[in-house]
Amino acid sequence: MMNKSLTNKSLTFAMAQINTIVGNMTANISTILTYAHRAADHHADIIVFPEMAITGYPIDDLVFQNDFRQQVSTAPQHLAQQLQDEGLGDLTVIVGCLEVEPTPDHDEEIWYTENHNSAYVISHGSIQTIYQKHYLPTYGVFDELRLFAPGDHITTITVNGYRIGLAICEDLWREGGTVSQLAKENIDVLVSLNGSPYTEGKMTVRHHLLHDRAREVNAPSIYLNQVGAQDNLVFDGGSFIIDPNGTLLLQQPQFTEDLSYWTLTGHQSHATSSTPLASNTEQIYQACVLGLKDYMAKNHMTQVVLGLSGGIDSALVATMAVDALGANNVYGIAMPSHISSKDSLTDATTLAHNLGCHFSVEPIHNMVTSINNQLHVHGLAADNLQSRVRGLILMAYANKHHLVALDTTNKSELAVGYFTMYGDSVGGYAPISDVYKTRVYELARWRNNLTTSSITHPIPESTLTKPASAELHENQKDEDDLPPYPVLDSFLYQYIEQGKKAADIHLPELSETDKNRLIHMISAAEWKRRQLPQGPKISACALCKDRNIPVSQQFI
Amino acid sequence: MMNKSLTNKSLTFAMAQINTIVGNMTANISTILTYAHRAADHHADIIVFPEMAITGYPIDDLVFQNDFRQQVSTAPQHLAQQLQDEGLGDLTVIVGCLEVEPTPDHDEEIWYTENHNSAYVISHGSIQTIYQKHYLPTYGVFDELRLFAPGDHITTITVNGYRIGLAICEDLWREGGTVSQLAKENIDVLVSLNGSPYTEGKMTVRHHLLHDRAREVNAPSIYLNQVGAQDNLVFDGGSFIIDPNGTLLLQQPQFTEDLSYWTLTGHQSHATSSTPLASNTEQIYQACVLGLKDYMAKNHMTQVVLGLSGGIDSALVATMAVDALGANNVYGIAMPSHISSKDSLTDATTLAHNLGCHFSVEPIHNMVTSINNQLHVHGLAADNLQSRVRGLILMAYANKHHLVALDTTNKSELAVGYFTMYGDSVGGYAPISDVYKTRVYELARWRNNLTTSSITHPIPESTLTKPASAELHENQKDEDDLPPYPVLDSFLYQYIEQGKKAADIHLPELSETDKNRLIHMISAAEWKRRQLPQGPKISACALCKDRNIPVSQQFI
Repeated sequence: MMNKSLTNKSLTFAMAQINTIVGNMTANISTILTYAHRAADHHADIIVFPEMAITGYPIDDLVFQNDFRQQVSTAPQHLAQQLQDEGLGDLTVIVGCLEVEPTPDHDEEIWYTENHNSAYVISHGSIQTIYQKHYLPTYGVFDELRLFAPGDHITTITVNGYRIGLAICEDLWREGGTVSQLAKENIDVLVSLNGSPYTEGKMTVRHHLLHDRAREVNAPSIYLNQVGAQDNLVFDGGSFIIDPNGTLLLQQPQFTEDLSYWTLTGHQSHATSSTPLASNTEQIYQACVLGLKDYMAKNHMTQVVLGLSGGIDSALVATMAVDALGANNVYGIAMPSHISSKDSLTDATTLAHNLGCHFSVEPIHNMVTSINNQLHVHGLAADNLQSRVRGLILMAYANKHHLVALDTTNKSELAVGYFTMYGDSVGGYAPISDVYKTRVYELARWRNNLTTSSITHPIPESTLTKPASAELHENQKDEDDLPPYPVLDSFLYQYIEQGKKAADIHLPELSETDKNRLIHMISAAEWKRRQLPQGPKISACALCKDRNIPVSQQFI
Repeated sequence: MMNKSLTNKSLTFAMAQINTIVGNMTANISTILTYAHRAADHHADIIVFPEMAITGYPIDDLVFQNDFRQQVSTAPQHLAQQLQDEGLGDLTVIVGCLEVEPTPDHDEEIWYTENHNSAYVISHGSIQTIYQKHYLPTYGVFDELRLFAPGDHITTITVNGYRIGLAICEDLWREGGTVSQLAKENIDVLVSLNGSPYTEGKMTVRHHLLHDRAREVNAPSIYLNQVGAQDNLVFDGGSFIIDPNGTLLLQQPQFTEDLSYWTLTGHQSHATSSTPLASNTEQIYQACVLGLKDYMAKNHMTQVVLGLSGGIDSALVATMAVDALGANNVYGIAMPSHISSKDSLTDATTLAHNLGCHFSVEPIHNMVTSINNQLHVHGLAADNLQSRVRGLILMAYANKHHLVALDTTNKSELAVGYFTMYGDSVGGYAPISDVYKTRVYELARWRNNLTTSSITHPIPESTLTKPASAELHENQKDEDDLPPYPVLDSFLYQYIEQGKKAADIHLPELSETDKNRLIHMISAAEWKRRQLPQGPKISACALCKDRNIPVSQQFI
């Protein structure tokens, strides 16, 4: 380890991987102060918080609300004063916040003309300097050029004789940008504040990226990421430090708050113990669980209700809900019809028993009969009628007991529109809406075999092995309407995540006609997908604003 | 009129205000050719089409689909060849299109690295030049920095000795930008291609804007706008030409396709007759009608179904639907309960009779009783149950007869969440979702008094005069739950469209507690609004992505 600044003092970083709440500056500053106290007790010199930690991230159009901007404009100085008042003035705090730029006009009113996504450096009761993020991601789920103006100056600070360069998230991802400028500054450490959402396999990409940047600045580099879910995004934390040789000096855990330390002393560095990363499957499961948990907590809700069909989707979502909220906060309802197999009710009952959640049975036969005695619908309309009666029952429970209904549809179904509007898709949150059906099975098997939970093998074996069916008419099987899920999911992955043309997707099981039919199903379901609950983005391209295809379009 | 180029030839512009279809390049090119033939027959020298007329606008993330880009990349040259082949080579065509920039990589595959929103100048079978839009709007409903790269060169062309400068939409709105550069070029005419969505009062703003620009370039200036609806937007056309003195040389109609001509001869100019603008109320009504009409046509649907409650919202939407689609394509269903007043059914029946649309009655009593004999819900849950049974009936009709269900909720209800999820808000399109309740009454009265339609006074007087009620429990009135609509709408307008803080909204009828309650209702309904059908943006801030407030947030 090279120490360019040739100091023999040591420098201890506290890595504060926190979970903030969008818009609750009081709660976020309280969290920041709690972690700052812990860091000071540990004799840290610097504590690093995530991008936009004071406001939460992403804040979307709150940035345009005058009362929000007014409150944020004083928050960093308010935090500086509180740190000083609580005896933490010697600690250098690096924390992200919306920077509101006031420009008084001729009428002495305050007009805000330009906002920045900034990193504040605070010590001794004052804001020492501010770095403004240069690169504002505007793609996929990001729209920062809508919200912020780009900064144009690099920022370095010196603490204990060490020179530290600052960057925020997207700054790291652009070749020849911020970091290239910092490379000329002979810095000892690169510190980046991040709000980087989880997607499958992203930790490896981040490691490679930061290794490149560490080489570029020829210094160990810190990647501090927030943790917690916000709307369609799950931030996985997993903060780390890497050196120019690619050695991982510290790895913090994913999907949980964490405070770890790293000390640089001349040529030596030392970190508190690192956390091995979980398997890909486990990461996805944890992302879904954290997504649901934070959706509930951040919306002041505690309990959920969902339909238990005996099928794999509802079984997995129920298990996730119990893991996220506790069995006592989960209400499962079996809603059998005369078409449902007996096994379905048995499987649902077994699942609820295994999970220890609330369970009730509401047969739909009388309701459906009463309605259809009047409406006389058949075929698809009758299938949908059953599904909508189930949706109506779930919403009645939700209203009656103040519960959030969970949408249990998976990504394969959402992609091709294989679900009923206002039926099986009702709810406030959709935990597996970015998980393909084949992956649903993988997650269920992984969770069944998890030995670290007090609940093992919650999902009945028959749920895992029987053919998938919506059970809306006699002998219905998903595979009568759709290609086998392994084929369908491979097609969808190549078409949606990889953006391939149909002609470039080679699957022996699918003819050109089959592929065109699937693409038309995807297109025709766009209006349905626009009316769905939020759910955690897991993949490179979730079916949310990540993939913003018009509803009215005649290309496909 | 000054003619800087000192030519005595004349120059005739054809102003082709067309309605394109996103993604249907075949249909759009066919429309372009049809208009080009008409212009040539009229001896026009130049024909001007809207922004992105070849692809339709806005195309959103279609820009990232490889097969779409491949098709678009050859479209302008294809159009040039067709024009030439059809004997239109002498006509100069100015037309907007996505410009796909191919950059072959080492594997000889085509990779597209940069796309532009461009204006193509075509004549004699070739693309003569391309102008790339400089300013890419990324606010409100626009996200062009997600989709395009900005251009950096101005473009002028010379036809019949006249020098013409080009601009695209947002270029006009930025001080000191594209037009300031064109001002140094001594141009004779400024031509702008636009995709400018309707909002209330926008024509006046456009006139002022273009007058400023005409003064800046010291030349008459053309504002050619597309017409037609696309997802949440309604493009109103209303193209015009203005001179540096602010004289309106030509005004085309709003909300309909149009081809008008304007001839410049030395110091003289002459236009085909101008269209007077309709009243504000009529414009809004027409925007809603066109929104619905194009949503249906562009999604290959022809018929709608909606619930007729006897109230004002469904009466207005039914009338709009008949005006948009014809009475034979509209199915109205009265769904009375034991709570509905007799007047409600009478009013619904009268309305349907006046409109001449299909009408049926589906009492909900038996269905609701059958369901609640099992579920035993009371209060709000029971109110919602009735609404959801109605939603279920509408969707059963929609499925059975291949109809689009219409959501009849208005902006006041959507703002404060005064509607039932999966109940009165079901459907594929929501024609009055950006229309406040007080404005709903204005539109209904205006339409009742419209003498140019064969259907006059469709809406029964008692629908216009009785107190608004959801009729979900005995003696329920909207004003028991909400402030009187004139007060509520004034508050909502100031809070949503004007972005005011509660403290700055002064309404003697509302206490601070009332205002805070309303703001909390608005915030708490965000998750509900995310699951609604699309509807036409009418106001400065519609409750769609125009106002992108997070669902999970604790600021309010």
